[in-house]
Amino acid sequence: MKTAGNFQSLTLRAVPEGRVVHPGTPLALIEGPLALAQLLETALLNHLTYPTLIATKAARIKESGQRQLLLEFGLRRAQGLAANAGARAALIGGADFTSNVGLSHALGLPPKGTHAHSLIQVFLALGLSEMDAFRAVAQEYPDDCILLVDTLNTLESGLPNAIRVFEELKRDGHQPIGIRLDSGDLAYLSIHAAKQLDAAGFPATKIVLSNQLDELVIWQILTQIGAEAPRYGMDADSIINRLVYGVGTSLITSAGDSALDGVYKLTALHADGIWQPTLKLSETSSKTTNPGHKALWRIYDDRGNATADLITLSSENPNPAEGIVLQHPTDPHKVRQLAPGICTRVEPLLQDIQRDGRLPAAMPDLPEIRRQRDADLAVLDPGIKRLLTPHRYHVSLSQSLWELKQSLIASSGNPKGD
Amino acid sequence: MKTAGNFQSLTLRAVPEGRVVHPGTPLALIEGPLALAQLLETALLNHLTYPTLIATKAARIKESGQRQLLLEFGLRRAQGLAANAGARAALIGGADFTSNVGLSHALGLPPKGTHAHSLIQVFLALGLSEMDAFRAVAQEYPDDCILLVDTLNTLESGLPNAIRVFEELKRDGHQPIGIRLDSGDLAYLSIHAAKQLDAAGFPATKIVLSNQLDELVIWQILTQIGAEAPRYGMDADSIINRLVYGVGTSLITSAGDSALDGVYKLTALHADGIWQPTLKLSETSSKTTNPGHKALWRIYDDRGNATADLITLSSENPNPAEGIVLQHPTDPHKVRQLAPGICTRVEPLLQDIQRDGRLPAAMPDLPEIRRQRDADLAVLDPGIKRLLTPHRYHVSLSQSLWELKQSLIASSGNPKGD
Repeated sequence: MKTAGNFQSLTLRAVPEGRVVHPGTPLALIEGPLALAQLLETALLNHLTYPTLIATKAARIKESGQRQLLLEFGLRRAQGLAANAGARAALIGGADFTSNVGLSHALGLPPKGTHAHSLIQVFLALGLSEMDAFRAVAQEYPDDCILLVDTLNTLESGLPNAIRVFEELKRDGHQPIGIRLDSGDLAYLSIHAAKQLDAAGFPATKIVLSNQLDELVIWQILTQIGAEAPRYGMDADSIINRLVYGVGTSLITSAGDSALDGVYKLTALHADGIWQPTLKLSETSSKTTNPGHKALWRIYDDRGNATADLITLSSENPNPAEGIVLQHPTDPHKVRQLAPGICTRVEPLLQDIQRDGRLPAAMPDLPEIRRQRDADLAVLDPGIKRLLTPHRYHVSLSQSLWELKQSLIASSGNPKGD
Repeated sequence: MKTAGNFQSLTLRAVPEGRVVHPGTPLALIEGPLALAQLLETALLNHLTYPTLIATKAARIKESGQRQLLLEFGLRRAQGLAANAGARAALIGGADFTSNVGLSHALGLPPKGTHAHSLIQVFLALGLSEMDAFRAVAQEYPDDCILLVDTLNTLESGLPNAIRVFEELKRDGHQPIGIRLDSGDLAYLSIHAAKQLDAAGFPATKIVLSNQLDELVIWQILTQIGAEAPRYGMDADSIINRLVYGVGTSLITSAGDSALDGVYKLTALHADGIWQPTLKLSETSSKTTNPGHKALWRIYDDRGNATADLITLSSENPNPAEGIVLQHPTDPHKVRQLAPGICTRVEPLLQDIQRDGRLPAAMPDLPEIRRQRDADLAVLDPGIKRLLTPHRYHVSLSQSLWELKQSLIASSGNPKGD
């Protein structure tokens, strides 16, 4: 196959970074010479799916931690060089900081982490003590002091020693940041660490949790703190509100779901001056493509909540004042009618990333991307954000698109292929 | 912390590429100034664990496919830039070729893949046929022709059309390579595709399988071909021996096990002219480190099979003529005595990767690495290679190392930390 045209003749429209997407939301539409568009398939899928996967995982973890501070700790366990794109995606999806120093520098963020167990080990091997190690950390980072308290015995050694060093820092006019728990029963230890810190006059110091965390482990830990804290005369919320999560392997590799199965399909061919819709049939109905030259919209309801994404033909312009019909992509009987007034806003979701070889004037920076993320998350019904068996957000077709799809299926004969 | 020394003062010893490793086999030992060695932690873990993970996954898939040709198809679904390191690791572990064009070029291998469904779609949209599309492929690649036969109907359209094009190629003196099945019941379709190809006089053309494959899916497909082929008058082995596997997502991301949980621990400190062993205790016995300045050996038995890896102190030199004692790393009661004559060979496993800033004269190339892999796999008992609940290969301690570990644990008090 010979390539025709050049990259100036490509138009790439995509859902911008920070926008929340759902199963079925198209991430990008590409228009250009066939051979060039085909060449892009692999690179685009790689660049769109992995960051979307990790941003989603970060959003889930942030949600499970009740939106407390989340640190990305995955560089050492990332899949090779995915570490950087993964950390950036985590920062977009829900992580506040990363321990990845290079990426933090590139994004203008301070890196965040703690000292290692090996620091304590070195002091011990040299005949010094855990306390000596803590004092050395405090001397080097008096205003940024986080102490890892589980090298010897968390409640009997690490924590009392940390509190002593915190008292010394406080006496010298510094504000200690917190402690880190990296092993043992994190729910039990959080309660007792909070109790000891409160008693010593450090109710504001943070408790950083790490050790094979993911959204389900965090959820369970918080549930157990909620149930157990009152037994020890503690208020669960005051503990939960001081927790910080350091999440490595599970976040950066999206453990359990290591890939987002994105596909790249031909949906229309420009021939004889018009867009000729094309269809890829499959025995699995949900894998049959949506044909034609298309547009993508987000529909907001009368509470201002995002209620569906709507895929239309590019010639359509959905109008809330006329009411909107949402057709399920495969089931003819699932049709939602949004009467005029129910749908308050229709927002186009795709933006130009490249048009005629040019990038848009300015790409949004990380704070702007995160504002978009927060805005999108705020208008989602809670059921959509449930960690297990979430309510499914509707990604629907317009009636015109549905009818085009049905007529192409009918004229294609027996569906096969996948 | 201020760094001391420079990278010339580091020595890095590692298990070379292509060597088979097991849970517990140390991958590398690093010796150098503390601060420098600490700086290396993250990069080394990242560079050692991900390729080891993917090479292992490739070896498992290759094994499940009865060592038939395995193609790595993961670039589009890889975790970002991990695609290249992942494809190279797959080629080391068991994949024969990759569809990653750039990496193939870098390694001097031909890339391997097939045309896409969209090629057929384009022909159909232009009023042409699947047969026209196949003829176009055959014309462009007469000696490298693989046809994807599942776009419309595999057995009724794709396969008969492919056979017609293969007959045309044969008439013109070319040898067609094969067909690819990317959907549907791959066991059933393999049997019937083989039957049709045999009947048409193409008993040697390959059948490439793809579509969410991994080692367990392949294992099931082969089991079902074994059970079903005779019903259709076919010999199962003749089918299995012509299969080729194209594996993408599961291989390049090691789906289900997306990270190898490697750790990097301080085990000795050079102070006062001697190596002072250090210990990191854990509530989980298997996470308590093996202390001291160490060496690593592979032990072969009287059948020539690898029977254990042995971690010793670096001052030890295990001698098969005297017999060898293998001590389980955590259970004092699990001791294996290899009498003189049982152990036929003791091989040092670590090689210098960097000594005093210098790399070894020559690094092995891919064919050499693969020869090492084949040699290592050939001397493993089959139970070790079982896909589910494999027999565990012994990674043992010498008695001197065990005694050192016990004495350090005893003098450390109550184990805590993880």
